[in-house]
Amino acid sequence: MELGVGRFPEPPYYAVIFTSRFHDTGDDYEPTSERMLQLAAEQPGFLGVDSARGNDGLGITASYWRDEESIAAWRSHAEHTLARQTGRERWYAAFEVQVARVERSYGFRRNGRLQRP
Amino acid sequence: MELGVGRFPEPPYYAVIFTSRFHDTGDDYEPTSERMLQLAAEQPGFLGVDSARGNDGLGITASYWRDEESIAAWRSHAEHTLARQTGRERWYAAFEVQVARVERSYGFRRNGRLQRP
Repeated sequence: MELGVGRFPEPPYYAVIFTSRFHDTGDDYEPTSERMLQLAAEQPGFLGVDSARGNDGLGITASYWRDEESIAAWRSHAEHTLARQTGRERWYAAFEVQVARVERSYGFRRNGRLQRP
Repeated sequence: MELGVGRFPEPPYYAVIFTSRFHDTGDDYEPTSERMLQLAAEQPGFLGVDSARGNDGLGITASYWRDEESIAAWRSHAEHTLARQTGRERWYAAFEVQVARVERSYGFRRNGRLQRP
């Protein structure tokens, strides 16, 4: 479902906010990042993900999950674990992860057209 | 404090995730947005804010607050209320707001240099 019109179930559900700055992304960051988004979307309990990186280099990825168990299972996925390891070894200068329980949500959409790419 | 090293107090605290796509930002979006960031930072209970907008137009702003009361007080601030009204009237094609209770957080920083701009 598109941004702004109840794309997620009724709260509570969970959000993982990943905020980062790059160090050395090499040739492997981009394909691995795309693979992780694809793989995450196949996991039980996955609800959605949004990602943005501005011109100042700060990136924010918010992924949404049915419950804490879904987050823990994705965290222990072998390919994801390997990607996170590379992230610490090389890709990121700094990052921050916040796991949060969504208590309420609301949205706005100007018209009926699809707003997501 | 900088990204990735306990920039916030120990959880629980609150995050407001604002995800948006633009409609018509005119000449007033940018200065109002800067004013809102400045004004938010002066509010009781404000902990920090990160914002990123990617080339595909999707923007994510995550602001962090001590408790729900701080969020409610900022929401009822007159200048902020007026800005939100203009957002619905003109700036945004769609947006989504999620209020979440941060249950846990952790961070990584490659070295001791400041990572925030």
